[in-house]
Amino acid sequence: MHPLRESVYQANMELHRRGVVLYTWGNASQIDRARGIVAIKPSGVAYEVLTPDQIVLLSIEDGRAVEPGLRPSSDAPTHLALYRAFDSIGGVVHTHSAYATAWAQAGRAIPPLGTTHADYFRGEVPVTRFLTREEIECDYEYATGELIADTFAGRNPLHTPGVLVRGHGPFTWGADAAEAVYHAVVLEEVARMAHLTFALAPSTAELPGEISDKHFSRKHGPQAYYGQK
Amino acid sequence: MHPLRESVYQANMELHRRGVVLYTWGNASQIDRARGIVAIKPSGVAYEVLTPDQIVLLSIEDGRAVEPGLRPSSDAPTHLALYRAFDSIGGVVHTHSAYATAWAQAGRAIPPLGTTHADYFRGEVPVTRFLTREEIECDYEYATGELIADTFAGRNPLHTPGVLVRGHGPFTWGADAAEAVYHAVVLEEVARMAHLTFALAPSTAELPGEISDKHFSRKHGPQAYYGQK
Amino acid sequence: MHPLRESVYQANMELHRRGVVLYTWGNASQIDRARGIVAIKPSGVAYEVLTPDQIVLLSIEDGRAVEPGLRPSSDAPTHLALYRAFDSIGGVVHTHSAYATAWAQAGRAIPPLGTTHADYFRGEVPVTRFLTREEIECDYEYATGELIADTFAGRNPLHTPGVLVRGHGPFTWGADAAEAVYHAVVLEEVARMAHLTFALAPSTAELPGEISDKHFSRKHGPQAYYGQK
Amino acid sequence: MHPLRESVYQANMELHRRGVVLYTWGNASQIDRARGIVAIKPSGVAYEVLTPDQIVLLSIEDGRAVEPGLRPSSDAPTHLALYRAFDSIGGVVHTHSAYATAWAQAGRAIPPLGTTHADYFRGEVPVTRFLTREEIECDYEYATGELIADTFAGRNPLHTPGVLVRGHGPFTWGADAAEAVYHAVVLEEVARMAHLTFALAPSTAELPGEISDKHFSRKHGPQAYYGQK
Repeated sequence: MHPLRESVYQANMELHRRGVVLYTWGNASQIDRARGIVAIKPSGVAYEVLTPDQIVLLSIEDGRAVEPGLRPSSDAPTHLALYRAFDSIGGVVHTHSAYATAWAQAGRAIPPLGTTHADYFRGEVPVTRFLTREEIECDYEYATGELIADTFAGRNPLHTPGVLVRGHGPFTWGADAAEAVYHAVVLEEVARMAHLTFALAPSTAELPGEISDKHFSRKHGPQAYYGQK
Repeated sequence: MHPLRESVYQANMELHRRGVVLYTWGNASQIDRARGIVAIKPSGVAYEVLTPDQIVLLSIEDGRAVEPGLRPSSDAPTHLALYRAFDSIGGVVHTHSAYATAWAQAGRAIPPLGTTHADYFRGEVPVTRFLTREEIECDYEYATGELIADTFAGRNPLHTPGVLVRGHGPFTWGADAAEAVYHAVVLEEVARMAHLTFALAPSTAELPGEISDKHFSRKHGPQAYYGQK
Repeated sequence: MHPLRESVYQANMELHRRGVVLYTWGNASQIDRARGIVAIKPSGVAYEVLTPDQIVLLSIEDGRAVEPGLRPSSDAPTHLALYRAFDSIGGVVHTHSAYATAWAQAGRAIPPLGTTHADYFRGEVPVTRFLTREEIECDYEYATGELIADTFAGRNPLHTPGVLVRGHGPFTWGADAAEAVYHAVVLEEVARMAHLTFALAPSTAELPGEISDKHFSRKHGPQAYYGQK
Repeated sequence: MHPLRESVYQANMELHRRGVVLYTWGNASQIDRARGIVAIKPSGVAYEVLTPDQIVLLSIEDGRAVEPGLRPSSDAPTHLALYRAFDSIGGVVHTHSAYATAWAQAGRAIPPLGTTHADYFRGEVPVTRFLTREEIECDYEYATGELIADTFAGRNPLHTPGVLVRGHGPFTWGADAAEAVYHAVVLEEVARMAHLTFALAPSTAELPGEISDKHFSRKHGPQAYYGQK
């Protein structure tokens, strides 16, 4: 079995275990850039019955299945667009986790209010605009990925590994599927904390930039000193 | 044992497992239209001790028990009224799940704020008016079902498979009891997401119609492409 | 072993299982009126290590221990005062469950906003005033019970089996300890639903009286038709 | 194995079990003042794989590791500063639990609104100011501990065993690591109750001082009568 299948299966099951997906409302993928293959969850298959061999392999070239099997997640074109736009990422996740989705539905970016946010996301977690009628009619899911890429113009996707699609929900990414899942869970908790904070203080200011910078650099870059090397 | 009993038993237990019922605050039923029989949970029996043979069989004709046994759910007349009003449905569920009940108590329909909503419900999830004193005194539970049917005049019940009864809580339905349970769980999560969204942005606009249409049609009708066929 | 011990042990463990107590923040008791004995949880003993033989037996006459053993819950005098004031009750529970406590801390009675409330509580769940300095200094816990009794002047305690002590938290009661626990869990959920409702509609009106009456009478009195007789 | 390792391991695992840490967002330590050794969780090690022998031992004198091993938590200097500033404490905990963090992000102290708070914390749970650019650049984590100590000038740390670091999250402490964990869990619940209370009544007054004093003295000092001696 292609090794991507097991990794992507495990990442999807972790999404389920972490409680950020209800029923089939989420999917994780990973790319093997050397072989040009993306592995992703099949569409509409319940996590309770998902098996590694059901993971679908797609060509990054044309988006077609590499071999016969189940249909890929209906969001697969969004994943493909993100892999094409962001060279540095190796895994993508989509969920409808409740707090992140609430920010997406409200059309509000999540501002950096604390060090939990700053540890993972540089600056706000941005929110896209709504897709236009033309984008919806032409190739909806692929256009969603392109809109995310446009929203990130000038941003380093690995420094802000997530986004809110307006009226829809979060996408996250990372070095591989496991890290994209990790960021999906972190984003949900950051979204929850920011929600709880605004209820207490609707005009809360952002975390001072020097604290954000400090926390980000504790975990990222050559000066990082969090964890075991 | 009548096959409906096992299906309805499993649907009721799934309600319990999904955490949308506290104690006995919920019930699921299913109809066999060929035989004119509705199977429903017995009244007040704890989920921890419920068994398939306790499921009550009622005639859709006169609402009476087909054979001796336990009393049906006190909400059974509402279920019967819905089966009579909506030819296309095969299962009905009632719960007091907290977020959907909060919208019902607030007397507010749940507007479509995101694609999670649009994937399952076309337009708002409506809320009924309060029942009148006359309706309450005459045949309260049956009148509740008739009021729901009135509220759905002009709506396709399978396109909006749920409703909020003002001051009471949600009813959902579907092709069978299992799908009605699925819609009860989805409605609770959609109600929660909308609640969280309004806390962030009290004047949030509805999702643009073209996105709602797109998502609904991804899962419903001849153009559907979500899932495995 | 005195049979009350096992019942009260089971009721306390159910409080723990239902998630309405954190650490030792709760206690359940039951009275044997024929023998004049009240059984109650010992003070500060963790639920994880509680055993039936540790349940403390007190005389309803003088509040003293019937035999040597552990100290009773520090709230025992409140329980005793309630048993003396309310002849019809057989069990009492105290918790610091979060939503009910929030209403108590806000100093607001919980109004009947829906049928879930009306099924269990006739009218609002009242909130007491703060205890005075004199009451605190003299016999704080017993005075708490007397204040609850004063707050219920003119009310039937079995028709409204719970109260919020201002700035403290909920007490509930019932025919025995098991029913008092049941009402503690129901009160927490009713408090949560009312909290969620006010967030959506701060000026929500109470449920019309005729619906409250109908639901209360479905479960109470000679016309009750909920459950298996 | 040094006995501190087992205690600190157990305290860290209890943090995980109680649900107040997500991933590695928390750490517990304990000091042996006779030997001048502080034991603390290693940095970035997942709770699922943590073992007692991985617990890091530091000298309270110079903060260096007593023997080769893993890197200590990046927050270790904050723990050391607290042990130096507060002679009476034996254990320290840091988490990013959501409600306490929301108060920290909002920059608001948690006022005593009820007896749950008063049972554990005398007066408000204070919030620090933001750290300055100079403090961040020089020795960020140690400066965090010094800022907490400054914030507690005139307060008895054992009477208010916790603090909110502005824009960051809570630190708690106690006689040992186990009690510091206990206070971390209690603080999160107190923060949640206060959050829920302000949603119901934004201008809620503090609990009258005589009730706060009574509850604090039920559990602390020579007159304490809660628990089994």
